[in-house]
This record gives sequence, structure tokens and C-alpha cells, in this order.
Amino acid sequence: MLTFNLYSNDKVPLYEQLYCHIRNELETGRIKFGEKLPSKRELASHLKVSIVTVETAYSQLMAEGYITSKPGSGYYAEAVQYHTRAENKSIYMPEKCQHKKYKYNFKTNMVDTALFPFSTWAKLSRETLSEQSPELLSTCDSRGIYELRLEIVNYLKSFRGICAHPDQVVIGAGSEYLTGLIIQLLGRNLVYGIENPGYTKIYKIFNANCLKILPIPMDEFGAECNYIKNSQADALHITPSHHFPLGMAMPVNRRTEILNWANSSPNRYIIEDDYDSEFRFSGKPLPAMKSLDSCDRVIYINTFTKSLAPSMRISYMILPPKLLEKFMKELGFYACTVPVFEQLTLSKFMGRGHFERHIRRMKKLYRQRRDTLTNAINSCRLKECVCLKGLDSGLHVLMEVKNGMNEKQLVNSAAEENVKVYGLSEYYSFGNEKIPKSSIVAGYSGLDEKEILEGVECLEKSWTFGNFELKNT
Amino acid sequence: MLTFNLYSNDKVPLYEQLYCHIRNELETGRIKFGEKLPSKRELASHLKVSIVTVETAYSQLMAEGYITSKPGSGYYAEAVQYHTRAENKSIYMPEKCQHKKYKYNFKTNMVDTALFPFSTWAKLSRETLSEQSPELLSTCDSRGIYELRLEIVNYLKSFRGICAHPDQVVIGAGSEYLTGLIIQLLGRNLVYGIENPGYTKIYKIFNANCLKILPIPMDEFGAECNYIKNSQADALHITPSHHFPLGMAMPVNRRTEILNWANSSPNRYIIEDDYDSEFRFSGKPLPAMKSLDSCDRVIYINTFTKSLAPSMRISYMILPPKLLEKFMKELGFYACTVPVFEQLTLSKFMGRGHFERHIRRMKKLYRQRRDTLTNAINSCRLKECVCLKGLDSGLHVLMEVKNGMNEKQLVNSAAEENVKVYGLSEYYSFGNEKIPKSSIVAGYSGLDEKEILEGVECLEKSWTFGNFELKNT
Repeated sequence: MLTFNLYSNDKVPLYEQLYCHIRNELETGRIKFGEKLPSKRELASHLKVSIVTVETAYSQLMAEGYITSKPGSGYYAEAVQYHTRAENKSIYMPEKCQHKKYKYNFKTNMVDTALFPFSTWAKLSRETLSEQSPELLSTCDSRGIYELRLEIVNYLKSFRGICAHPDQVVIGAGSEYLTGLIIQLLGRNLVYGIENPGYTKIYKIFNANCLKILPIPMDEFGAECNYIKNSQADALHITPSHHFPLGMAMPVNRRTEILNWANSSPNRYIIEDDYDSEFRFSGKPLPAMKSLDSCDRVIYINTFTKSLAPSMRISYMILPPKLLEKFMKELGFYACTVPVFEQLTLSKFMGRGHFERHIRRMKKLYRQRRDTLTNAINSCRLKECVCLKGLDSGLHVLMEVKNGMNEKQLVNSAAEENVKVYGLSEYYSFGNEKIPKSSIVAGYSGLDEKEILEGVECLEKSWTFGNFELKNT
Repeated sequence: MLTFNLYSNDKVPLYEQLYCHIRNELETGRIKFGEKLPSKRELASHLKVSIVTVETAYSQLMAEGYITSKPGSGYYAEAVQYHTRAENKSIYMPEKCQHKKYKYNFKTNMVDTALFPFSTWAKLSRETLSEQSPELLSTCDSRGIYELRLEIVNYLKSFRGICAHPDQVVIGAGSEYLTGLIIQLLGRNLVYGIENPGYTKIYKIFNANCLKILPIPMDEFGAECNYIKNSQADALHITPSHHFPLGMAMPVNRRTEILNWANSSPNRYIIEDDYDSEFRFSGKPLPAMKSLDSCDRVIYINTFTKSLAPSMRISYMILPPKLLEKFMKELGFYACTVPVFEQLTLSKFMGRGHFERHIRRMKKLYRQRRDTLTNAINSCRLKECVCLKGLDSGLHVLMEVKNGMNEKQLVNSAAEENVKVYGLSEYYSFGNEKIPKSSIVAGYSGLDEKEILEGVECLEKSWTFGNFELKNT
């Protein structure tokens, strides 16, 4: 008879202790395949435990397949085949990356969250929580809650010139996620044209999905339409309102040219990424390309990550009717990835005018920072060698530096002064002989005015001293 | 000279009125390509507005590409090419689907949110909000915040027998999203084996991603290993702890057999979907297959959707070290799709024992519902024709009905009594001659005890009256 020490004062319940012992006997082969186990009654009486204890242990062993029961006969050991164990099972411990910390980091697309109206947001969050609506706990439409889609449509109408129906809006946890949906929607056999230079993340997403990617070269107006027309591209991902990182806005002619290209063949689509259109500093915002899209070839995509906070993973896209139908049919099974709670809170935030007010404040702040940066550069010796571009909009500028240094030297000499700037070549996903040799991308949204002034001072030191010596290196 | 009526009391700023008028002149061809516009000073004086107003309007027109400025000369109209407009631009208005509402819907995988400790959750949410940590507004690790990954690892150790490091955990907005990441991680050239019958969503996800899908037939122990061994499958998606919808748990032998299959060739992986393992009613939970995975071939995936509420789009996966390295290198650019706020609140909820307590309560509730269902069936005339399977675990049962009706007749006659049940054939993504002809899947987690009793009464009426007449139809 099986004999084990069971401890009734132990934290582990008796049945579990018993289960472990028997399992051990089976695994070590002390109970062999086909061997009959003692009946529940016998074992209970032998071990001085209740029948229920034995029963529970046996049930567990049965459930896991260690033993079987033959009705009217009893319990029998199963043949347990062991998984060939690898030796030295290791748990991965990734090495911590040692990134150099810079005192002044002109990183692009930083969001200054210090001005985020957190108390308002928290108040609305509390309100959402205290309404305790059952909505908070149940699933919503796969496109997101109607209230938020309505707010988005109203916003787009007032600020981006886009006329859309809330049914066309699909909300998702970030533009990266939505881009994944677009890929599933448009299909894998298309050739996707992407701006080069451009958002390297877009390249990475298309690449991680093993798609055919075509780099589209840029001229002063944006993606080169003649190139597109003579290419194999079926779909385009572009940033017409404010190109990243070159900073230009695409003029209306180029826009219509590209729209006409899309419209001249079935199944051509344009993905318009309007990522920072809220932050245009002069005049009223440029209307989105989508507002000209009378033939329904534009998928408009935008995010709250840059206008609210990076931790808000809320983006949305507007689908043309034909694609919406396909979406509902083929991808409508996907649950919406944004929690209902965040959606409700954001609807309130927008509906009560907080979003508009916040955007206005941020625009003012970012404009001040841009002015601080440009004034600082134009009032020091950098003026002679730095030409600034892409000033009208967004959260970064492009610096064409003509001091004899190449891009690498510019970045490295800035680093020596504790300043991080980014070479334009980083934004080219494809090698290209036309990459400007001495252009720097500098984001100003993550630094305050004092930091910008000090950062420019450091840049002045690193880029205007000894530039003649470096000219020939 | 251009003459327009501008209204200074209008809601629309003067510069915008002016911009609209000039744009209209350009678009209708009244100002022609190459034509020189009046100077800012002239136009301002003519229209009796400030120079700044004209300047702003001109800037906007320039930004959009309608006019250009030639330094020292003035402003000129651009050639504006018009996008070929489609007639009758329509906004999509989808028709509302008219789903029949049933009084008793035995839908699977419903979550009863009435017992969700909402006030505790709200309290923790408020706590998270009031801490106002900058963490709430900034991005986190692409895998999610460390605190939550640590809580998950502790939970898995105690309840699922899994030994993992927080570094291996990747948090995402739902299992569907994580499955999309797994596809990008494992690659597109693999053949993905899926259980047939099984989760139709899994089929839909793989299908929407245009992958090679292989249906794996099931026997009484789960996915047929001999079939797998002789197939082209490279990766498997399985539910070993509680098969959906058949309800069996895979015994230890089948598990090790499948693990050995995976280990016998490089790049074979098993995706273990442990979707409702929390709700095992007898004995202690079955250890996850991952707990046997000494060769690091199992990607473990689980969700909080079923254990908390469907609106919580929080799932996680445990990656084997090799895949984790690949993930960080190739997919680490993806931002985590779950808001930091939800992650912080859930960490607290788990860390303070609320999650465990909640699971215990829900398990008790669902067990009661299961008992109500089985007792009701076994104490009425259904007893003679209904054989229940998959009772030990999860939120649904399988009913094998032997009253002479086929599946369609069973579903339709139940519908006539206002009861919705689901034919097993719905869960087959691939046609298969072996589909049982009269099996019904019935979820009991979305109905209270009264509803279950009444629903069973209706089923009794529809399935036990006149079954002899139906036998030959």
C-alpha cells in the first residue's frame, strides 16, 4: 500500500499533498503502467484521511491523464511518456542597454505632458467611473463607441475640412495597430509606396509584415508624383500636411495629382497620416488631403498620442465606404483595442471643449519653443552656417548645416557638448545617393525654453569652432 | 482689383474670409495661372483691412500651393489642377442588422460582470489617478509596465505552474492583437495548425493574415498528435487546458507527445491559448502545458477579458528566450497597446489579492450555474436524450442530443421556444465528414440560475415533444 507522510497543518491541502506524492511515484516509475491503484476507501483508511481527500487527488490525476478509471474495477496507472528535457533550463535575462543620457536631447515627436490638463482628465475619469455604467464593463462595437466616433467626426469637420460619418470611423490602440488592420484590409499583394525619407516605424511595420515596399523619393513638394506614376505602387503611405522629417506641406496641385493617380486604376489607395496636423503655427490649419478626396481613395489616419500624451494609445482612421463594408465583413470580428473607459473619458474631454483648448495651449507653447530655437540660432554664429526648414508646422525643424562638417561629424561634435541631434540619413529606410550630407533633424517639443537656449549655445560651440580644420576630414 | 465683401462682425475671421474668396477666384479660373495678385499693401488699402489680414490670407494660400511668391516681385497664381470629382459623393450609412433577440441565449464565453468588484476597481483607479505619476502620461516599455509583468509572473507561478521571468512577458490589447504579433514573430512561411473544431476567431485571424492554415482533427484527448506528426504543420495553436468547444483537457501524455514533436525540429512552436483556465471546477487547476516546456517551444497566451470584463482589453504572452530576443530586436519598436493607467490599476488589483478573490467568487458562481444546468437537464425528460460533456471546466458544456433531430432541427426548434443554442458545426472552420450530427454547444455564464432553469424547460419542450415524427425528416 502507498504510504506517505501527510501533514494536516501544512499550508498545502491534504489532497494536493497526496496528489503530488502519487504523481511522483508515477513519474519515477515506482508505480508502473497498468498497475492498479488502491481503492479510494482502502487508501483513505490506510492514510487516515477522508475519502473525499483521496477522491479529489485521484480526480486531479485523472484530469491530467496520469491515471484512468475503469468503471466497476478501479484506478490504473497510465503510461506516462516524458518530454525530453533540455538541460540547464535558462530564464532569459536581457542585458540592460546602456543608452547615453544627454543633457539636451532634440528628440522628435516628444510631447510635453507638463501642460496636460491632468486634473480635468482625472475629474472626467472619476465621473466616468462613478456613472458605473454597464457600458464600462461590456464590449463595444469593433470600431469603438459611437459617442467618441461622433466627437471625432465633429472635430474633423471643424478643423480638417473632412466630411465623414461616425460609421466610417475605426478607433484603435495606436496608429501602428491601425496600420496592421489596413494591411489586412487592402491585402498583401499590393506594392506599398512609402516616403523616403519618412517615418522609419512605417517601414518597420510594413517590413515586419513582409510586404512589398517601394521607397518614393521626395522633392520640394513632397512625394514625387511622376515617380509614383511610373512605379508599381498600388498604395501609398504619405504625410501631406507636414512631411516627416523634411517638414514641407504638400501643395494642392501635388495633392490632386496624387488623388488622380489613385483614381485612375481600381484598388489604389492613399493612406494619409495626419500625425501632427494640430500643430500648424501660421494661419489656419491646412485642410487634410482627405477633404479633397471625392473619389473615396483616401484612408485618413490620425492619433491622440501627440495631441494628448504618449501613454494614450488612441488613434483612429476614416475608411472610404467600400473599404468600410469590407472591414465590417472581414475584420469586424476584431474587438476594439481601446478600453471603453478611455473612450468614454475622451468623448467627454472632446465634447466639453477641453481638447480644443488643450490644442490651443500646446500650439502656443510649441510655437514659443520654435521661436526660441530659431531666434537663438539666428542671433548667434550658427546663423552663418545653419539654414532652417520646416518651420511652419509640427514639432521639429530641419537644419541644413554648411560648416564643412558631414552629418556624422555634426552629430558627434554635438554629442561631445552633451547635445543629441539626429542625422537626416537616419530617416531614410533605403540607401539613396541623394541623401543630403549635412542635414540635422531637431525636435524642440521635449525641451523647455531654457534648455533650448542652452542647447543652441552648445551647438554653437561644437559647430562653429574649428570648422576649417574639419573641412577636409 | 479684387473686391469682396468682408464682414468684421462675422464669426469667421477676416483673413479666412479673404482666403476663401481668393481661393474661389483661383478655383473658378477668374484668376488665371501666372496672373499677378495685388500687393499686400494695395489689397489691404483697397479692402480697408490691415496688412496683417492680407498677409495671413496670402500665407495660407501659399502654404496650400494656390499661389507662389517671387522675392522682390510679388504673388502669382499657380496652375491649379483639379481632382476629377466623382458625382454624387455618398457617405456610407450601413444598414442596421436585425438580429433576433432571444429570451434565453446560451452564448459561449459570456462574462457576468454583475459580480465584478467595480467599487474596488474604481477605488484603485482613483488612487492611480490621484498619484498623478508622470508614468501615467509617458510611454512604457513595449512589453508593458514592469509592475504588471511581475504580478502576472507571480500569478502564473502560483496558479499555472509556470516559471517565467517578467522580461519574458508581453502585454497587449487582447489576444487577437498578440496573435498578430506572434504571426510577425514566427513568420509568414510557416504552416499554422489549428484545432478543428476550435475558436473560429483564430481561424479568422490567420485567414485575414493570408497564412497557410492546416486544420488538425480532434480525438477524445485533444489535437491528434499522429496527424500533426505526418503533417506539414510548423506551428500549432491549441487550447490544452480546456478545449474550445469540445471541453476536454489534454492529458499529460498527449502534451508531452506534442512537446516532443515540437522539439524534434528547429523552429516548431506551440501557441498555448489558456483562455479560461481560471475556471476549473474540480480539484486544483491543471498545470499549463507551458509548465512542462523545458525546451522553450511554447508561447503561452492568456487574457483578462474572461476573468475580469470584456471591456478590459488586456492579454499577455510569455515568450521563450529565443523568441523574446527576436521580439525585442524586430518588433520592439511597437508601442504597448494597453494604456499605462489600466496597467497600473490592474497591477494594484492583482498585487492586493483582489484578482484572486474575484476569480474564486466567479468560479463559485459559474460552478453553481453549471450545476443548475446539469441538474435541470438530469431531472427532466431531456435526461434520456442529452449526454453532457466538458463539465469540469470553463463556461460552456457540450450536449450530445439523441432524439432523432439533426443539429439544424435542434437549433431551430429551440429558437421557436425563444432559446438560442449553437450547433457544434459552427466551430468547424473546415468542412469535415466527421462533424457530429447532433451536438450543441451551450454557454451558461451569461444567464442567471432562473434563466437557466427556464431555458432548460423550453429546451425540454422543443426537444422531447414529437421527436418520433422528426426522426425520419
